[in-house]
Amino acid sequence: MNATESVEDAAALSHVYTPGVAADCRAIAADPEAAWRLTTRGNSVAVVSDGSAVLGLGDIGPQAAQPLLEGKAALFKRFAGIDAWPLCLTVRDPEEMARCVTAVAAGFGGVCLEDIAAPRCFAVERHLQQALEVPVVHDDQDGTAVVVLAALENAFRLTGKSTESARIVISGAGAAGTAVVRLLQASGASNIAIHDSKAPLHPGRDDVSGDKKWLADHTQPDPGAASVGDALDGADVFIGLSGPGVITAGDIQKMADQPVIFALANPDPEINPAEAREHAAVVATGRSDEPNQINNVLAFPGLFRGLLDSRTRELTVTAQRAAAHAIAGTVGRDDLDTEHIVPSVFDEKLVPAVAAAVRAA
Amino acid sequence: MNATESVEDAAALSHVYTPGVAADCRAIAADPEAAWRLTTRGNSVAVVSDGSAVLGLGDIGPQAAQPLLEGKAALFKRFAGIDAWPLCLTVRDPEEMARCVTAVAAGFGGVCLEDIAAPRCFAVERHLQQALEVPVVHDDQDGTAVVVLAALENAFRLTGKSTESARIVISGAGAAGTAVVRLLQASGASNIAIHDSKAPLHPGRDDVSGDKKWLADHTQPDPGAASVGDALDGADVFIGLSGPGVITAGDIQKMADQPVIFALANPDPEINPAEAREHAAVVATGRSDEPNQINNVLAFPGLFRGLLDSRTRELTVTAQRAAAHAIAGTVGRDDLDTEHIVPSVFDEKLVPAVAAAVRAA
Repeated sequence: MNATESVEDAAALSHVYTPGVAADCRAIAADPEAAWRLTTRGNSVAVVSDGSAVLGLGDIGPQAAQPLLEGKAALFKRFAGIDAWPLCLTVRDPEEMARCVTAVAAGFGGVCLEDIAAPRCFAVERHLQQALEVPVVHDDQDGTAVVVLAALENAFRLTGKSTESARIVISGAGAAGTAVVRLLQASGASNIAIHDSKAPLHPGRDDVSGDKKWLADHTQPDPGAASVGDALDGADVFIGLSGPGVITAGDIQKMADQPVIFALANPDPEINPAEAREHAAVVATGRSDEPNQINNVLAFPGLFRGLLDSRTRELTVTAQRAAAHAIAGTVGRDDLDTEHIVPSVFDEKLVPAVAAAVRAA
Repeated sequence: MNATESVEDAAALSHVYTPGVAADCRAIAADPEAAWRLTTRGNSVAVVSDGSAVLGLGDIGPQAAQPLLEGKAALFKRFAGIDAWPLCLTVRDPEEMARCVTAVAAGFGGVCLEDIAAPRCFAVERHLQQALEVPVVHDDQDGTAVVVLAALENAFRLTGKSTESARIVISGAGAAGTAVVRLLQASGASNIAIHDSKAPLHPGRDDVSGDKKWLADHTQPDPGAASVGDALDGADVFIGLSGPGVITAGDIQKMADQPVIFALANPDPEINPAEAREHAAVVATGRSDEPNQINNVLAFPGLFRGLLDSRTRELTVTAQRAAAHAIAGTVGRDDLDTEHIVPSVFDEKLVPAVAAAVRAA
């Protein structure tokens, strides 16, 4: 939080502290709505993680997740002017996680969940959304899905393909993979196969339940594909949300014309990006040292700026699609090429465009 | 929190966020101690309240307490460089309060409890101190007691009295009153009477329990004193931690020579300070527009600076006494007079002196 006033003399001191604050305290006691005007609530977000699925590092615990949460808080401030604070959760039961966050959430205008392992993340998000009157967004789901959809919109523009007709193969059925499938389907995709670490999710899998079972029943897998590589035969798009070494250059060569490869595992993508570029029309990764970085920071500052500004409780699918379209549109017509399918996060038009799209939706 | 690095280009972005933070995350996963070096933890404090006893406003709830917590956070930053964040608690059961704060406390270097009603505040503080490895200070108790002791040291220097022999009458047996009695006794005071809103606390009171019962059994009341005013007959010091209208000018006239009046209720003191000054040797209040403001901001920035710097878990009585002595000593020998018994919070020697005293203790 940045103080809006400096405290350099006794008058300023009595204004920001006792007795000055008593007037603001009284006003909020009389009308809780006044908190949005008189406190930092309308501009603040809690960034919450239990450290159970941090980057590619896995379950490293809440304390070890703190650098990531602090980095995220810095980006909230830098790109959207939002005051964010990291909360590292030491409890793991979804109901207890939600109960504790709810108990301390009265001063926040939103909650950004981060790097919580699936399927626990779905339960925590659901409990929190029921308990709180402010938006609760799991960035690894919604943020990732929005940026993937934005990048795909521009990749399809370059390759002349469409969301509706493309065959899309996804590796990784965790939080991100699940959210990507749902948002792609809401955007018209009708030919998606998603693989977990064992095999494609298909209705015959008796070892899955919950969200994975839903994916198995609502996607278009090839149950005979032994590996993700096999599944790529004739596919238009590969989206990797899993880990390194999942596909090979040979797999890409079997894909349809103008293949699109999003190898998003971080720090080590599903395939070496230089190798992928030899065979694919468009290659994107999660890495900052490669072209086309699919980075959540393209979405979350603008998403929360829009949610906070409009006091919207829910980040709807409509708002997510609008945000993705705004991100894609921030890449100028003349700038769009195979190495520039997403805008720079430093593009000053980006956050206002995403925020406006969310507000309008 | 203020970011230690600005984010102005892609290199800076990959440093503060992925993939740069992965190295810090890994280091903390390998050695949790590294969090104190690699994150803001060692410089951050959660300021926690349920809004049940805010200033003189009473139980106005967590949301309405937020302006006060934000003001406090601003002062933590201004005077001690500490990053503090307000957490407004919507739960009221002491164990649940402690459980929720504990669940989100992994990223904080300390917890400052604020404006929680007695006796709940005692239980919350005790539970948290057992659960956490970082200092937990209830500022309304410890901070107030330290500043009262500091002011009293200088008031006694001016009036030639001593803690050991003074007759001290306290109005208000809540969190602050209880802490003041304990610290005064640890500092040698042996003649204290404390009144709650009904009567003096004495062993014959069968309507009190817990901490009030302890006070009744361990102080030196005049059971016959019908009011605080009666109790002041012959007393050296009055300390008001209750509310307006408790004592009169006539009561002060019945006190011993050179009476000391601390009328600390805020915003309305126990007696009009101008009226008190007509009869007392030294008058202090909690108000910023009167001389001798007994303000917790004289203590808490330095207390936490010292605790964080020394990674000390407990604010011991020894440390509290040392801090009080440091505050009193910050008033220069030539500056000490009846209207200057405490230093200015803007005195640059103050916070370093208090922090050094806590570290040394």
